[in-house]
Parts: sequence; C-alpha cells; structure tokens
Amino acid sequence: MAEETITTDVVIIGAGPVGLFAVFELGLLDLKVHLVDILDRPGGQCAELYPEKPIYDIPGLPLVTGQELTDRLMEQAAPFNPQFHFNEQVEQVERQEDGSWLVKTDGGITFHAKVIVIAAGGGSFQPKRPPIPGIEEYEGKSVFYAVKKMETFRGKNVLISGGGDSALDWTINLQPIAASMQLIHRRDGFRAAPASVNEMHRLVQEEKMKFHLGQVTKLHGANGQLEGVTIKGNDNAEFDVACDTLLPFFGLTMKLGPIANWGLNLHENLIPVDTEKFATNAPGIFAVGDINTYPGKLKLILSGFHEVALMAQAAARIVNPDAKITFQYTTSSTSLQKKLGVA
Amino acid sequence: MAEETITTDVVIIGAGPVGLFAVFELGLLDLKVHLVDILDRPGGQCAELYPEKPIYDIPGLPLVTGQELTDRLMEQAAPFNPQFHFNEQVEQVERQEDGSWLVKTDGGITFHAKVIVIAAGGGSFQPKRPPIPGIEEYEGKSVFYAVKKMETFRGKNVLISGGGDSALDWTINLQPIAASMQLIHRRDGFRAAPASVNEMHRLVQEEKMKFHLGQVTKLHGANGQLEGVTIKGNDNAEFDVACDTLLPFFGLTMKLGPIANWGLNLHENLIPVDTEKFATNAPGIFAVGDINTYPGKLKLILSGFHEVALMAQAAARIVNPDAKITFQYTTSSTSLQKKLGVA
Repeated sequence: MAEETITTDVVIIGAGPVGLFAVFELGLLDLKVHLVDILDRPGGQCAELYPEKPIYDIPGLPLVTGQELTDRLMEQAAPFNPQFHFNEQVEQVERQEDGSWLVKTDGGITFHAKVIVIAAGGGSFQPKRPPIPGIEEYEGKSVFYAVKKMETFRGKNVLISGGGDSALDWTINLQPIAASMQLIHRRDGFRAAPASVNEMHRLVQEEKMKFHLGQVTKLHGANGQLEGVTIKGNDNAEFDVACDTLLPFFGLTMKLGPIANWGLNLHENLIPVDTEKFATNAPGIFAVGDINTYPGKLKLILSGFHEVALMAQAAARIVNPDAKITFQYTTSSTSLQKKLGVA
Repeated sequence: MAEETITTDVVIIGAGPVGLFAVFELGLLDLKVHLVDILDRPGGQCAELYPEKPIYDIPGLPLVTGQELTDRLMEQAAPFNPQFHFNEQVEQVERQEDGSWLVKTDGGITFHAKVIVIAAGGGSFQPKRPPIPGIEEYEGKSVFYAVKKMETFRGKNVLISGGGDSALDWTINLQPIAASMQLIHRRDGFRAAPASVNEMHRLVQEEKMKFHLGQVTKLHGANGQLEGVTIKGNDNAEFDVACDTLLPFFGLTMKLGPIANWGLNLHENLIPVDTEKFATNAPGIFAVGDINTYPGKLKLILSGFHEVALMAQAAARIVNPDAKITFQYTTSSTSLQKKLGVA
C-alpha cells in the first residue's frame, strides 16, 4: 500500500451530495478540500442506490435523478478543484497537540488537516457478508468484497459468487488475467446487463470459465489461504471445487463503520451536533447530512445543503483564525465570482 | 374594496423563493396554502431586484437567474395549486379564541387560517416617497405609488413622475383613459425600454400628452385633493401645472412594514425563531428565510429551503393535531408521488 501524507485545510469524509456541496461552500471561503469515499465514484447513496430514480424535493429541480444531481453538484464544486480519494475508508482520526487532526485511510493515505467534515450519510457502504461459517479468517487474504486493483488477481484461481452487475462485470473483466475463473449463483437468472450475461455464457461455451448453480456452504484452506469450497447445488447435492480466491458480490449494506471508534458522542448511530455550526463534541470535527442529529432533524438532502453553509463559516474560523470573514453573496460579490471563474 | 373571507390551512406572507418552496413542503403534508405578496408577481427580491442576474449558490443549479429560479419553484409548487394574492399587503393579524388567526390585507381580504408563515424576506417593498413637503396628506387620495386598478384613473388629469419602466409604462397605459396626461422627469434620459420611450415621445409629438424636464417641488390643493403642482425646471425656473392625480414612480425600498405591529418578538428588525420548527413567539406563526434570525443564521435562499421543510412538519401538527405524520421521501413514497401527479 502506498504511504503518503497530504496536508490540506479540510478532509471531507463522504462524497455524496452533501459532501460535494460542502466543497462549494468551503471553497467560497478559500478552504482547500480533500474528499474520501468508500465508493468508487462521487454521489454516495444518490449514485449508488438510485442513480436513475427521480428525486422531486430538491428546491428548484422539480425532477432530478440521483446521477444528474451528482453531476450538477460536481460541476458546481469544480472551480474549487476538490481532490477525490475513492475506494478508501477513513479508519482512524488522531488529534494532534496543536488541535489539528491526522486522518488515516485503509489504503494507507494520511491527511493532516485542521478540520474534518463527516458527511457520511448512513455510514459506510459495507459489502454484505455471505453466511459461510468461518469466512472472517479468509477476508483480506483470499476472500475479497471489492476489486481495488485488478492486478491482485492475476494468475489466481478465482471463484466469484453473485448474480448482479458487480459479479458479472468482474467475472468478465478478471477472466483474461486469472489462471481460472468460475462463477456461482443460486439461480439461472441474473440481475445484470443482458450483454454481460450473454458474454458470460459465451465464455462458458468456449470453456474459458465455468458456471455453477448453487451456493457456497464451506470454505477449505488454512491460515486464511483458501484452497477450495464446497458448493450445495439446487438439487441439494454437494460438491467441491478448487480455487484460491473467492469474491462474493452480494450487494452493499450501510454501517456506521469506524466512525464509532473516534470518541464522538453518538445517539442511535447518529452524531449529535449544534444547529449553529453543526459541530460535534470533538473540536474541529463537524457532522453534516444524514449522519447528524439535532432537534427537528429531517434526513433531507436540502437540509444537508443548509448545514454545510453554516458549517463552512465555522470551519473557516478554525483554519484561518486571524482572517476577517465577510459574508458575501455570489450574486453581487466580484471576489466570489472570481473564485467561481465567472467574473 | 372587495370584502371577502377565505378559510385555508396556511397563509404565507411573501411569495419569494422561500415562500414558494414552502408551498411544496406544506403540500407534501396535505396543507392548503394561500400566499399574499405586495409585489405584482411571484419571486420576491429574486424577481424584483435581480431577475436577470446570475445566482451561483443554489445547490444543484451552478448558474441560475432570479427569474429562472422563480419559474422552477413555481413549477415545483404547481401540483399543490397554491392561491396567490398579489398587490396585497397583510396589515393585521388577530388571534382567535381557538388559536386560529384572522389575517387582513390592505385590499380587504380576510383569511381565516390555523397557521401563518412569514416569508417576507427583508420586509415589504415600499415605494420610495419623493421629498415633497406635505405629500403624506395626499397619499391614497390623489397621490398613488402603484396602479392597482386602471379604472381608478379614468377621466383624471394625471401627472406621472419618474424615468424608469414603471413611469413610462403607466404613462402609455393610462394616457388613453385619462382626461389629460403629463410626465415629469429630472433629465431627458430614461432607464426604461427604448420602445416605451419612443412611444412616449410619439404621444408628445401628437400632443396627446406633455413632458416636463424638472422635479415637483410643491403640491397645491386641500383636504388631500390635489389641484396642481409647482415644477422646478433644470434651469431653476419654477412654474405651475394643473393636475388632480400624481403618480410618483421612484423605485422601491424595503421596510419591515406592518409586521412590526403584530406583537412578535423582534431583534434588529428580524424575527427570532427556534431551529427546530422556526416558530416565532406567537403560537401558529412561523418565520422563515431572510426575515428570521437564530444563532448561525445566514441570509441564504438555501437556508430558507431547509427552514420551510422543518417548519412544515410543525405546521402539519397544528393543522391536523390528531393525524399521524409519517416522514416520507419523494424518491420512494408512492403516496407523495401521487400528490405530485407523477405516480
């Protein structure tokens, strides 16, 4: 894993709509921002759970899809050149003596920042773990829930489990570099793009991979290294197949994740904040969007937008304690318009 | 003046962007709304002060004009069939024994509602009064700052003062029904549509009206009835002209207006509210948008949007105290989508 330390004004945890609009509001106040997200692209739940579903309650956008809203917010944030770190989870935050924070990801990145903004929605998207006894000891060694780098799987005997787009796409994409490829799904129907399903069937016909109907019931191996699995077919017959790598793609679920260990006050997996600054109990850490709670709180995207606007004022005072911050309007301020690249 | 009483769930004072979005949020909760605005169209400051100026900080709309934002919010509110009352100012609110309110306008409309939402921005737009001694005693009798009904001026000897669009438009529109028409402006240049200026010059050439360079310095008349004015020309020479009606169009200014007399707590012309419901000290009266204040308050349109969403929950509990209010999302709730006319 790459080890690097990045110094910045603000680290935003979560690149969903509220995190993206935080870039804009912080940018108007001259703060530089890095964003970390466990997903592989911006948009959070909007892009992950309902990219094509209409949202009707974004003010001024009578009908917008999750993906379109994400694209619009990316465009709005672009003048401030936000730096994105996808497929990364923040595992640890450490307060420094001067009040600043070290923010460490599971991918080995360390940020040094004065302000942390938690805009993590319902928490982190976590892959659903299949109910196979003892799977935990293989995780991260020979069982993986995501493909961060394809090269990791070169020359491996890969078994992929699942019937959605992720399962099908990785079957097709890893097949050429894997030593062998097998796909297992509990039924013959797939919830994936028909073209991907056809391509998989073609690879099977050409004997470039195998497809099994059924589910994995046992793992065989030692010290976290998989050697094979037992499959229970839909006829209840069991059989073993050899493989050294298992990739289960059973969808994502939301968990609070490592945030629970950062010493923040929590209330039913939410982070209580004030309504003046949306600050947590930890100085320099703010929480905005669905992950926070306060009297009257509604989990609405439009509320997150308001929260980041007020949070940004407080963040700017922490980053630049001696600067005089004048509240200005984009409609009338030439200085703000220059930052936006329109003046 | 027409006297009518309208019974409704909610009266919103102010049809600016925040008032318009309040229609949407209240509508999702099945509340029926009437809006009153002193202007002649929706949009408030947005439409009145910067209809063509870009706004950059509406989330998801990287660039939008005040007029376009107004149009978008009107479209979003349309499924809830809001009833607008333009050119009306709310003068008085009276609490009833059962906790409901009577809301009375200067145009003679009385609303009976359980909830009042003040979304009045910087207050009411008030016409600027020209510095003519004693003009107050003529106001509303023979000096008018707005044309509510053209018929009022049929057969009158009208003098219009000003050089903007309002002055020119009313000169042209009232000339055919007035007994005589005169326009006075302090210089020969106009801040009005060139076509209107040309039309006015044509009327002068055809001797259908007169144009004077200068300004009104004295009013002549008795008991509020104007008989003539003294004009000081740009050469400092003074002369009198006869007229029975004066319409000064010198632009608008913002004043808190009658709201100051409703027994609400005020702080520097703003209305303090809580951040859970955005309620004022008067039960059933809420204040949202630029007119309210609370710790951290920023006068941003996007903050008003958040405020009305939370206010609507509280308003629904007042209007329907026995109903169970379930918080739902437009993205997933078929019931909300039916209200929006999209399911």
